[in-house]
Amino acid sequence: MKLALIGFGTVGQGLAEILRDKGAELEAQSGFRGDIVAVATQRRGTLYHPDGLDIDDLLTAIGKGHLDHYPDVLGLTRGWDALTLIKQSNADVMVESTHTNLETAQPALDYCYAALDSGKHIVMANKGPIALAYADLKERARRAGKLIRFEATVMAGTPSIRLAMGALRGCKISAAKGILNGTTNYILTQMENGMSYADALGQAQALGYAEADPTADVGGWDAAGKAIILSNALFDKPLKLRDMDVFGITHITAADVEAAKNTGEKWKLIVTVTPEGASVLPTRIPLSNPLAAVSGGTNAITYSTDLLGDVTLVGAGAGRSQTGFGLLSDLLEIGE
Amino acid sequence: MKLALIGFGTVGQGLAEILRDKGAELEAQSGFRGDIVAVATQRRGTLYHPDGLDIDDLLTAIGKGHLDHYPDVLGLTRGWDALTLIKQSNADVMVESTHTNLETAQPALDYCYAALDSGKHIVMANKGPIALAYADLKERARRAGKLIRFEATVMAGTPSIRLAMGALRGCKISAAKGILNGTTNYILTQMENGMSYADALGQAQALGYAEADPTADVGGWDAAGKAIILSNALFDKPLKLRDMDVFGITHITAADVEAAKNTGEKWKLIVTVTPEGASVLPTRIPLSNPLAAVSGGTNAITYSTDLLGDVTLVGAGAGRSQTGFGLLSDLLEIGE
Repeated sequence: MKLALIGFGTVGQGLAEILRDKGAELEAQSGFRGDIVAVATQRRGTLYHPDGLDIDDLLTAIGKGHLDHYPDVLGLTRGWDALTLIKQSNADVMVESTHTNLETAQPALDYCYAALDSGKHIVMANKGPIALAYADLKERARRAGKLIRFEATVMAGTPSIRLAMGALRGCKISAAKGILNGTTNYILTQMENGMSYADALGQAQALGYAEADPTADVGGWDAAGKAIILSNALFDKPLKLRDMDVFGITHITAADVEAAKNTGEKWKLIVTVTPEGASVLPTRIPLSNPLAAVSGGTNAITYSTDLLGDVTLVGAGAGRSQTGFGLLSDLLEIGE
Repeated sequence: MKLALIGFGTVGQGLAEILRDKGAELEAQSGFRGDIVAVATQRRGTLYHPDGLDIDDLLTAIGKGHLDHYPDVLGLTRGWDALTLIKQSNADVMVESTHTNLETAQPALDYCYAALDSGKHIVMANKGPIALAYADLKERARRAGKLIRFEATVMAGTPSIRLAMGALRGCKISAAKGILNGTTNYILTQMENGMSYADALGQAQALGYAEADPTADVGGWDAAGKAIILSNALFDKPLKLRDMDVFGITHITAADVEAAKNTGEKWKLIVTVTPEGASVLPTRIPLSNPLAAVSGGTNAITYSTDLLGDVTLVGAGAGRSQTGFGLLSDLLEIGE
């Protein structure tokens, strides 16, 4: 399976490392072999080689700051833009991990159209296209006879999507409730430990959980994007951000946290998705709820089902190898 | 897909109800159609009809205490023993849900051999054959070109096996730790609420969690059987009960539970499975461990992996529709 990696930041590099370190094992176990033939970054160059790029050389080059540091080899093409790479490369799958834009989904959405038009499957870590254009993409993919997978968009590689769409097949899911943003859960956990909101946010930023501009996390927008993806995936229902109640955690005070503690509860930023709609709301939940035990940067989701009752999955919601594995698990499924 | 149900107690009836209630939906969604052609009970008769049995009539008959109450229809055969049913019926799959025997796995093991010899896939809720003879059955199935699936043996239909073998494919699992017996977890939870061991056990029996003879549950043997299944499935390592440390909860006192509470911990009966071996041990775990939040009859399992870190699944560990769904999910996989 030949791969075009569009976006080569932490997530793309995470996938490359896994393919390097586990390539032989994956080939022996599942007959899966993933060769990176194209890599596109926004400002650090692009590369294409129809016979495949060397992963160690790729990682060394990007580690030095630019793909120009990749060695010259016969047949290598440098400097094509991302759209040209997608259209002209011999890749079987586009792996998209550029930055999420929840207002326009661009430029990733155009990359998706180009991938399907040129006969490529799509594997996404970017939330934008799935959140904003899932129905359209699904229909285009169906017509093209190609697959779109997006496990890494919700809870990184922890198989939240695969659980709902695969292992729970035959159950009717009536609701999903989850903690889908690690930064805010980390901050709330530290506030329970007595830290102020500002200090906890600073620590989350120092640890790399939170961006320099933390609005997307603490304002609930990252979680809202995941809610829209779940609404599309579980209920075939497209939602717009403006249709949802989205509240972040910026107004939660130390006194609020303390008050919850005194009644045996915890504040969590809870995403709720049902066939009727979705919301992101800071919520006091009792300790008996499995979500109450989810602390720090960990994520979790509870699916309410007809035959099994509640099924909860707890695991990482971010991280280099974690999100890289999310992409890999989609590739393995496509390769079956 | 024609099914022979060997065993028609709670679990088999649970599957039959799901097939009745969801048959049309499953056929529309997945093209799956499951027809029950044979049913065997130990003391309540057996039935076979090559064109399929009527599920409502089956449930009515067994509700009256014996399959003799099933109406006479042309082509119906009554009274074949289970082995004859398996060998002579036109079923594609044997669904085995007779009583677990962890010492001999019989008579279920002979049923498995007969099923494979006569060209049938196997779906199991019975823990015995998988715990005692997995490697042998897997090899016989491979030679026969048939599949063996056993989701329902661990955590009922909560997809603990499917998560490990399917969704986490590509990750290396180094350990599984879980709460895999609902009766003991219910008793320990009630003891935390101030109830005595004896009262909690009585309540578990009254609620149908615990058998009249609770030894298999409170002695840790039911959990040990599941540990052996996980050892086989995850690590291809057959274990014997005598190779494992198995301790139940009968020696846990109210004072023990109180002492744990005072240090912010909880007693849980923890199954641990690694490539080196397995154990069932009452263990004090901190509240920060997701397993600590698993209360009442609920089960949970944590897989430790290389790429994702810990992934925890929480859900039902028993129940009519829950275990029935476990069987159904295996049938859906076989039907793919």
